[in-house]
Amino acid sequence: MPLIDRTTSGVYIICATPFTETGALDLDSLDRLVDFYVGTGVTGLTILGMMGEADKLTPEERRAVIDRVMARTSLPVVVGVSDAGLGNLAALGLYAMEKGAAGLMVAPSKGSPREDRVIAYFHAVAGALGRDVPIVFQDFPQSTGIPVSSRTILELSADLPQMVMLKHEDCPGLTKITTLREAEATGAPRLSILCGNGGLYLPQELARGADGAMTGFAYPEALVETVRLWQEGKQAAAEDLFDRYLPILRHEQQPGWGLAVRKTVLMKRGAIACAATRAPGPRLTGTDVAELERLMGRLAKKLAKEV
Amino acid sequence: MPLIDRTTSGVYIICATPFTETGALDLDSLDRLVDFYVGTGVTGLTILGMMGEADKLTPEERRAVIDRVMARTSLPVVVGVSDAGLGNLAALGLYAMEKGAAGLMVAPSKGSPREDRVIAYFHAVAGALGRDVPIVFQDFPQSTGIPVSSRTILELSADLPQMVMLKHEDCPGLTKITTLREAEATGAPRLSILCGNGGLYLPQELARGADGAMTGFAYPEALVETVRLWQEGKQAAAEDLFDRYLPILRHEQQPGWGLAVRKTVLMKRGAIACAATRAPGPRLTGTDVAELERLMGRLAKKLAKEV
Amino acid sequence: MPLIDRTTSGVYIICATPFTETGALDLDSLDRLVDFYVGTGVTGLTILGMMGEADKLTPEERRAVIDRVMARTSLPVVVGVSDAGLGNLAALGLYAMEKGAAGLMVAPSKGSPREDRVIAYFHAVAGALGRDVPIVFQDFPQSTGIPVSSRTILELSADLPQMVMLKHEDCPGLTKITTLREAEATGAPRLSILCGNGGLYLPQELARGADGAMTGFAYPEALVETVRLWQEGKQAAAEDLFDRYLPILRHEQQPGWGLAVRKTVLMKRGAIACAATRAPGPRLTGTDVAELERLMGRLAKKLAKEV
Amino acid sequence: MPLIDRTTSGVYIICATPFTETGALDLDSLDRLVDFYVGTGVTGLTILGMMGEADKLTPEERRAVIDRVMARTSLPVVVGVSDAGLGNLAALGLYAMEKGAAGLMVAPSKGSPREDRVIAYFHAVAGALGRDVPIVFQDFPQSTGIPVSSRTILELSADLPQMVMLKHEDCPGLTKITTLREAEATGAPRLSILCGNGGLYLPQELARGADGAMTGFAYPEALVETVRLWQEGKQAAAEDLFDRYLPILRHEQQPGWGLAVRKTVLMKRGAIACAATRAPGPRLTGTDVAELERLMGRLAKKLAKEV
Repeated sequence: MPLIDRTTSGVYIICATPFTETGALDLDSLDRLVDFYVGTGVTGLTILGMMGEADKLTPEERRAVIDRVMARTSLPVVVGVSDAGLGNLAALGLYAMEKGAAGLMVAPSKGSPREDRVIAYFHAVAGALGRDVPIVFQDFPQSTGIPVSSRTILELSADLPQMVMLKHEDCPGLTKITTLREAEATGAPRLSILCGNGGLYLPQELARGADGAMTGFAYPEALVETVRLWQEGKQAAAEDLFDRYLPILRHEQQPGWGLAVRKTVLMKRGAIACAATRAPGPRLTGTDVAELERLMGRLAKKLAKEV
Repeated sequence: MPLIDRTTSGVYIICATPFTETGALDLDSLDRLVDFYVGTGVTGLTILGMMGEADKLTPEERRAVIDRVMARTSLPVVVGVSDAGLGNLAALGLYAMEKGAAGLMVAPSKGSPREDRVIAYFHAVAGALGRDVPIVFQDFPQSTGIPVSSRTILELSADLPQMVMLKHEDCPGLTKITTLREAEATGAPRLSILCGNGGLYLPQELARGADGAMTGFAYPEALVETVRLWQEGKQAAAEDLFDRYLPILRHEQQPGWGLAVRKTVLMKRGAIACAATRAPGPRLTGTDVAELERLMGRLAKKLAKEV
Repeated sequence: MPLIDRTTSGVYIICATPFTETGALDLDSLDRLVDFYVGTGVTGLTILGMMGEADKLTPEERRAVIDRVMARTSLPVVVGVSDAGLGNLAALGLYAMEKGAAGLMVAPSKGSPREDRVIAYFHAVAGALGRDVPIVFQDFPQSTGIPVSSRTILELSADLPQMVMLKHEDCPGLTKITTLREAEATGAPRLSILCGNGGLYLPQELARGADGAMTGFAYPEALVETVRLWQEGKQAAAEDLFDRYLPILRHEQQPGWGLAVRKTVLMKRGAIACAATRAPGPRLTGTDVAELERLMGRLAKKLAKEV
Repeated sequence: MPLIDRTTSGVYIICATPFTETGALDLDSLDRLVDFYVGTGVTGLTILGMMGEADKLTPEERRAVIDRVMARTSLPVVVGVSDAGLGNLAALGLYAMEKGAAGLMVAPSKGSPREDRVIAYFHAVAGALGRDVPIVFQDFPQSTGIPVSSRTILELSADLPQMVMLKHEDCPGLTKITTLREAEATGAPRLSILCGNGGLYLPQELARGADGAMTGFAYPEALVETVRLWQEGKQAAAEDLFDRYLPILRHEQQPGWGLAVRKTVLMKRGAIACAATRAPGPRLTGTDVAELERLMGRLAKKLAKEV
């Protein structure tokens, strides 16, 4: 299996985890969802991220998700392994690598709110995984509560050759991309930078040097096309395309609640059988669904007009 | 001067506070800015809010801003008076009311993170201001760190007849509007609900029963037209118009940093002489400005096409 | 097995989870630790709490801890079952009850920062566990980030007959005890209140109506004696005794770091074989250990003098 | 006036700000309070800190406090000048220095949660004050919400010769003192370290190399004697003395609420006329006062026995 590296680019879609109405893992829907993602042209998949509700899965369920996804696609798969315990993190991570994962995604541990502790923690993570395992640093302070300076990321990138990628979702975070790219221009080792936050600032992020997106927007083809057009130098076309999706993208990108929106879109697009999140999790009311259908309808009309 | 009440609707623009490059209050620009806002058709102004950098002004400067704005416009003016001390809050608030303010905006105090304390605090605020002063409850947990349940807002609304308006900027917050409106349908007293967050979800908020916007987007005419069209029943037209502005609106709506974007747009539109925020505050680099100019250019082209 | 109820009092010791130097679960030490706790005269045990590092244990390990402790003691055992997922919480909780637990401890979920959500969450928890399972509400905002008003606790206590106990560790929190007891005096159903925070304010908490302690101080006999003397009406004697332990108690009660202190004391007292916490967790340096030994030595001398 | 420097040691008492029952500044009590502090043998005073309710004072009131305290004592006075705006910070700071202050205390600004921003902010502060003004870095993440690594403090200490002192109140924070002193042993410039948190860990902090205390415990003589005995090499005597005060010290050291306890003790000791804090602030009930009197009575008895 190919591994991610410091030049990886494109779209790694953050994979939702489908459940039945009663909260059971729905592995058939997972197959269908993987096919759906692959069909949109994504470069790879990221499973068991925060939006994958990994913290509500048992270790067996996490392994079942890994097995199923790996069996279904030959695209590179990054596996989220953040965990309160380093031992559990490493056990799941090594399992995933053995099964053919392309790399592992880790966020700073809640127990490490100071930046010196973030640095120590990632050294410990790297030590526990071994030096051959590619690591993605997930920089998501809105969720972890841990702000991380560019210099900390640069120091880790220099110290740990295996920390090859930044999942960038600090917000506001455009300046951070520029700072990192400027540092690389004067000697720091290059990081692959894929951006999250639902893709809300994707064109600006690409303009500042990001390599693509790693996020879970339920219209992955929009991310794929935006990145493709951009990389072909067609920046205005990329932005035009992106802007058509922006109304529904910004609706889906509401922290916490948006996951229920995303799963409902995926269900309506036929990618999963049921939109349920595991409890405690958001659930759409009739009002919410009608509102979403209106946004989906407006998008469909706009796309039809373009053809 | 007319006071805000529980039926107030429209757009109350959150007024930036202009400074010179060295950080001095620029009252001439404030005149110009008020004229600019009035020219866009806003219903009223809200001054000395968080985006007005009120916490960096001395009490004298706050009073100078009040005086100047009141002298410049006959539109209703809401004055933000949040303060660590209740005495200072009341002193400024009573000054503003005497000068003709239409109401006062208050956020829960940092010292009151529990909802029973939020309730006690607003009773104390009401007591200090007297019962004739209309109060706007600013519900902005992303900034205050204090989440507030719908039931707390409803209880305060029922207990304090003078708490006539909610500045709604909890996020995700669409459900909250629906919850409040449903409670009102079964007997709770009506609140005016004006929405913040830069207007990022304005059409959805209007659909759920909001009365308009209270936010500082640097293209106030977009907020004004969206609300007007909506209130005339032209919902699709309202959304079409809103969507054209969405790319730059979502760029401006980056917490903290976005204020520098907003002030730069206001400067480029001729509304203020200088985009500086007071230190410590965000400041755009050349890269940031070029990025913004690109977004402004794209908007201008799109608007030109529509005509 | 007896269940906890609304009149439960005494000392429920928060049980540490012993590991070997390499991080493996040390079940032999767990036996020894249970014997040690029982030998100090505690009323019951609470296992798998936050200080039990439950979030670093796999589900199998959690069940192994439950099995082992239940097999070792006939004292009532409360089991901490807080979990990001409600399904996993219920599965572990029902397992524990089947094995003879006296009740289950639950903290508000990170996904429920608003008090209306806390209320909805505990209703969901109660529904998932069934109405016969006694629940302890763990009120620990310093760790959960979720402040909870007295009225929310009272409402849950009234609505959920099975929510029989408050683990009180809000801080400052003395007023909260008084507020709850006053509400009970005018009709609210009685809650058992056991206090945490290492016991730092235990005499004051008892004076305000607490029924005892639920915390993990490594000298449980101090908690036991303080509560016993207090309940016998010997308040001055209780405080005198408590004060002798206060220097080391306040040293152990340093959030996060203190767990390493506590486990080192337990090791030095022969209760466990190894003081290691699971990574990422605190670990004492030579300086830290010398400092602790000095405090232990001072305590020993003081106790010797009393005899 | 003598300035603080990198060798400053002793006890700088954090000075409460006395108000009348109606919330007016009580300057006569301030005189009395200064005399009281001086009478306990403190080395210096720190005014307008967080516990001095500085954020509830107008700029005029802050200057009035500075003037009054400077006129009353010849001891060195550090002035807290933290402010949301850098301009206001500098204006008050330069006023204080002109009036003879020994140095200025500054905490990281709320707008700078990342450590690279903390560094940039203190460079800006130093620039605004000029290089001759001694600065105390207040490291109090429990209040500011901004965790700061030792390396950040060391970098600032090296870059800014005028940043001569650390007000240490990170918690747990004992390791931080050791880390800083070890760095100094291998070449980093020495910082004066005075400790806060009410003095809760003072003997341990002294043992690790702190130079004394900067905190507001209402029995300053306990801090003075502890430090004095320690510096004379009488460590056991220092701890014995400290431990006698610990029960009431830990009662006073309850975040937020404890200020009302502290002011009540100061009032009962005759140092101020009224214990009121400015609204919104804590206020003791009859139960609270009786509880405190009990603790004060126990201390008095213990001290009487020693004589």
